[in-house]
Amino acid sequence: MAFVNEHYLKLSAGYLFPEIARRVAAFASANPSLAARIIRCGIGDVTEPLPQAAIAAMHAAVDELAHRETFKGYGPGTGYDFVRTAIADGDFRSRGIAIAEDEIFLSDGSKGDCGAVLEILASGGGANRIAITDPVYPVYVDSNVMFGNTGGARADGRYDGLVYMPCTAANNFVADIPAEPVDIVYLCFPNNPTGAMIDRSRLEAWVAYALKNKAIILYDVAYDAYIRDPTLPRSIYEIPGAHECAMEFHSFSKSGGFTGVRCGYTVLPKALHAFTKSGQKVGLNALWTRRWNTRSNGVSYPVQAAAAALYSPQGKAQVKQLVDFYIGNAAILREGCSKLGLRVFGGEHAPYVWVECPDKLKSWDFFDRMLSEANVVITPGAGFGACGEGYFRISSFNSRANVKEVVRRMTTMCESKKEEVGSRK
Amino acid sequence: MAFVNEHYLKLSAGYLFPEIARRVAAFASANPSLAARIIRCGIGDVTEPLPQAAIAAMHAAVDELAHRETFKGYGPGTGYDFVRTAIADGDFRSRGIAIAEDEIFLSDGSKGDCGAVLEILASGGGANRIAITDPVYPVYVDSNVMFGNTGGARADGRYDGLVYMPCTAANNFVADIPAEPVDIVYLCFPNNPTGAMIDRSRLEAWVAYALKNKAIILYDVAYDAYIRDPTLPRSIYEIPGAHECAMEFHSFSKSGGFTGVRCGYTVLPKALHAFTKSGQKVGLNALWTRRWNTRSNGVSYPVQAAAAALYSPQGKAQVKQLVDFYIGNAAILREGCSKLGLRVFGGEHAPYVWVECPDKLKSWDFFDRMLSEANVVITPGAGFGACGEGYFRISSFNSRANVKEVVRRMTTMCESKKEEVGSRK
Repeated sequence: MAFVNEHYLKLSAGYLFPEIARRVAAFASANPSLAARIIRCGIGDVTEPLPQAAIAAMHAAVDELAHRETFKGYGPGTGYDFVRTAIADGDFRSRGIAIAEDEIFLSDGSKGDCGAVLEILASGGGANRIAITDPVYPVYVDSNVMFGNTGGARADGRYDGLVYMPCTAANNFVADIPAEPVDIVYLCFPNNPTGAMIDRSRLEAWVAYALKNKAIILYDVAYDAYIRDPTLPRSIYEIPGAHECAMEFHSFSKSGGFTGVRCGYTVLPKALHAFTKSGQKVGLNALWTRRWNTRSNGVSYPVQAAAAALYSPQGKAQVKQLVDFYIGNAAILREGCSKLGLRVFGGEHAPYVWVECPDKLKSWDFFDRMLSEANVVITPGAGFGACGEGYFRISSFNSRANVKEVVRRMTTMCESKKEEVGSRK
Repeated sequence: MAFVNEHYLKLSAGYLFPEIARRVAAFASANPSLAARIIRCGIGDVTEPLPQAAIAAMHAAVDELAHRETFKGYGPGTGYDFVRTAIADGDFRSRGIAIAEDEIFLSDGSKGDCGAVLEILASGGGANRIAITDPVYPVYVDSNVMFGNTGGARADGRYDGLVYMPCTAANNFVADIPAEPVDIVYLCFPNNPTGAMIDRSRLEAWVAYALKNKAIILYDVAYDAYIRDPTLPRSIYEIPGAHECAMEFHSFSKSGGFTGVRCGYTVLPKALHAFTKSGQKVGLNALWTRRWNTRSNGVSYPVQAAAAALYSPQGKAQVKQLVDFYIGNAAILREGCSKLGLRVFGGEHAPYVWVECPDKLKSWDFFDRMLSEANVVITPGAGFGACGEGYFRISSFNSRANVKEVVRRMTTMCESKKEEVGSRK
């Protein structure tokens, strides 16, 4: 008799974004005349075309596959050297950070990496104490549930067995160092969903904590391209000691606009270790390499060519232009929400603006109001965790015209509410 | 203190193909004048250009990504409907097999799928008894080791806790039904590495066994395009009852030549269930869907377009041409090895020819001889399991000229050995 992974049965409600998609589809179906009017600022999905450098590289790579002399079959499980060198040079060595090619692992996206890393770590029965922020990118939590690293779901949506680190306005949405020792810590800066950024001294404190406790920081920098202030850390490896305690998760989704192209990478330095129950030190780079060679034949060749092209001089300039554009959108959203008297966070070094709901509304209630009255899709903060309740995330991934229209509609909606409330007095 | 997945430490020697690559690189480096002469028939990697239909579809898809109006961001985690419909129609419904779109899960390759499926099944502590053939595609074994479904490695390379099903000349390399009940069975037909094919009655017996024992068959048909005889089953779902006991693994690597493009798919019917320890029946389709939505944002859009193009009339004709070409190579290899008096198997409904080593040589010894004397890379049978010892696999994925040259060199090598032995008498 075949037995199922029962940990899956602990998963509460559907994954956040499918639930949003379901509500939007239901609204559009009930209001067909409004369907075309809906503006999507919910899921953090880019809208602008790929950089020309990536387009040209993909066309050229496809042409290589069309001729026997230049055909490419199986590639290395962890990525071609031409990409890994471009990454190591472009994102690390040119900034004075020592990272070798074989410490870089190309993948078809950061979402998969965040879950896959659990494969090389001990799972189940509280083998590792896992700390996550609240609010948090739901993939970290759900992946840990699937791997048996949690108990059951509680009424508030949290899972037994996880260590939750509240991120609130009081700590500027940067998690405080836990009083207790934990083994694995997920951190994401610039943050999804809050758009918060960590400064160097607080990141140094995290590295010191991890080194002291022999913990590992899983550091997600999917939005590093959005950091404007050069004094803020773009990589945890800028902090001395981080090579011994951190793995880093990178994505081309929001820099090169690769959400449909699918490419990201992890950095796992050879200095990073974990331990057996008997205390033996095990280098994780070799395990991660073995994992990739057994589970993958690498990323699609034209995709690898596109990723490498982002590091060419033209590619870099085009990525900068794309990121500048979205950051410009974020500034408009920040300003619009502020003018409505809402408390606004993030959006300065991140594509996400994090806003307190008006009228003390709950997140999903404001989501429903925005959908039905403004025909704008946002992401309810509560979808990211209990501490996200009462907030919403609005994404700057849209056309300039749509972003301005969102601000207009929110203004109309909020002002009509004020009048309504006023007239009831 | 972060703890490691100690199951990885049970993994014996490196994965087969990296070891082959290592020996080939060492030979080429020691014999630079011979490096260019090496012909690779080891790893089963295609050599001919992609079908033009796939090339055209990829170019068109890349162009869509270059314009805002047609840009594609995140796709569905399990694949776009346009591909899933093409697959369901092309591989199943047109052959009278009922498979729905939401029973098809697009992936970046079958290698990953073979391991990933273990995520939704109970792991560790002998929760499921896993049966694999010997010889076997190493990924099945190594993935199970990594998930904790085995004990330690034994001296003969086998792992404690797995049920090995010997495939030998005596059973035509088709595993016999085990006497004991098992929970999960890996079967692969046309087989890698032996090239053997199962007939309908023996596959019916396997389905009956699985239904009786509530077991699940993981049925790998990566080479189904090579089946010449229309009376042989191309899908396990041709057998009544298989929807309730089997999951199927498909790949475009060897049909469309996608080893570098990366695309495959799994079929998981909604009728397929596994059980909780308390005996509750759980539908696996929903779990697999959840797994994909949490761990993936789907396959690269141009790759999905290329996969769908293989089902167009032009695409089908071009795939057939490609497969006919490689099968033609296999026939030449079969004939060449037969003429040398070697015992030859497979290669009729598969791109692999499975040959007994001459002179009772061990697999790796014959590998080394072929490399040093004929400068031809084969795959040692022992790399696929203890029962593969004394055999080698030779791949038909090469140019016609190279395949003929391989036969010439093998003939020269074997005949010079005969003379040598003769002159010693």
